[in-house]
Amino acid sequence: MDDHERQASWDAAGTAVAALVEDGMRLGLGTGRSAAAGIRAVGRRVRDGLRGSGVPTSVRRDDLAALEGIPCIPLDEALDLAFDGADAVTADGLVVKGAGGAMVRERIVALAARRFIVLIDDSKCVGSLDEWGRLPVAVLPFAEHSVTRALGEMSPIRRESLSDDGLVLIDVVPPAGSDWRRIADDIAGIPGVVDHGLFVVDPGDVLVGRPGGAHPMPAVR
Amino acid sequence: MDDHERQASWDAAGTAVAALVEDGMRLGLGTGRSAAAGIRAVGRRVRDGLRGSGVPTSVRRDDLAALEGIPCIPLDEALDLAFDGADAVTADGLVVKGAGGAMVRERIVALAARRFIVLIDDSKCVGSLDEWGRLPVAVLPFAEHSVTRALGEMSPIRRESLSDDGLVLIDVVPPAGSDWRRIADDIAGIPGVVDHGLFVVDPGDVLVGRPGGAHPMPAVR
Repeated sequence: MDDHERQASWDAAGTAVAALVEDGMRLGLGTGRSAAAGIRAVGRRVRDGLRGSGVPTSVRRDDLAALEGIPCIPLDEALDLAFDGADAVTADGLVVKGAGGAMVRERIVALAARRFIVLIDDSKCVGSLDEWGRLPVAVLPFAEHSVTRALGEMSPIRRESLSDDGLVLIDVVPPAGSDWRRIADDIAGIPGVVDHGLFVVDPGDVLVGRPGGAHPMPAVR
Repeated sequence: MDDHERQASWDAAGTAVAALVEDGMRLGLGTGRSAAAGIRAVGRRVRDGLRGSGVPTSVRRDDLAALEGIPCIPLDEALDLAFDGADAVTADGLVVKGAGGAMVRERIVALAARRFIVLIDDSKCVGSLDEWGRLPVAVLPFAEHSVTRALGEMSPIRRESLSDDGLVLIDVVPPAGSDWRRIADDIAGIPGVVDHGLFVVDPGDVLVGRPGGAHPMPAVR
């Protein structure tokens, strides 16, 4: 898939999620490039007269939403619909996020919404999360060293930049064949860990964009 | 209990915990006034030749430890012994901390230690946590409004100052007669909550100081 096809895929997914937005909805606006396509598609509908507002999940999405004419609101009430990209998604709805480091705010916003839609292109569909390989972990700076020690067997690598919330970002590699849910739960229990990048969603809420259009991910039977 | 008696109680508890410190131990240094008495008592032993080092749980305890000649270390290995104060303790080892807002770092340090000692005076012993009444909650600033909404039935009050980690501190009042463990678990599950002030300890690790000396809290039968 070349860059043009990839952008066309994101645009298709973005257009599909924008079609789900109803007048007056409060939205959660994700951070990745597919979410940016969704924000632009919502912006087109807003310019056509749709009313709506949104909570951006990162500082850079504040800017895009404003540019697109979507009023930015604080997260002080429930949201109607949130959408966001992902780094890897399995057919049973395991989602890894956080390559961009925004997964802490993204989960807060996703869980505040009545419905959470994941926007991806075909390249993000994996048979197993091992194909993607990395799980991001967000950590209080005070606990960086103790958490790194606790993560020691999973090759922790600290990123240079902090998250928008001032958290240290550490990528780990779960052992091949391991149960990522269990590993993520264990990681969440380490003192000083604020969150990680594993999300579990309904596969029917994953929209896979292709240059010709978008479709929900088929559920596993 | 007047101020003089209270200080004498903290000093007794501090002296008792300092007596547990062995040469070369790595310590966790708590934040409250009884912990300060413990740090000063450890400092006296260090000036008498004991070797030891410590991880302070707050910026203001960095200063006291340095003043007392206890080398400050980062939290990059397990600790031997941590000690800290508390706001209220029941006979079955339920502990509320966080009146000073430092409970996030305090838990990280307590859990990094092989043994965690709570230093209190008699005024902190309660029959039920309802007598103390408030549970502090530490929250990512991004989620302040959504968490406050989720805490709505427990009279959330936001403190003006942030924690040392830049977290918003919100005090809630659990309903009288409620199970604080269950409530704390529920609060911990709210997206954006980083931690709360409920700790559970072995009552034998609670040292109650009195002007004449300190003794472990008697266990419930």
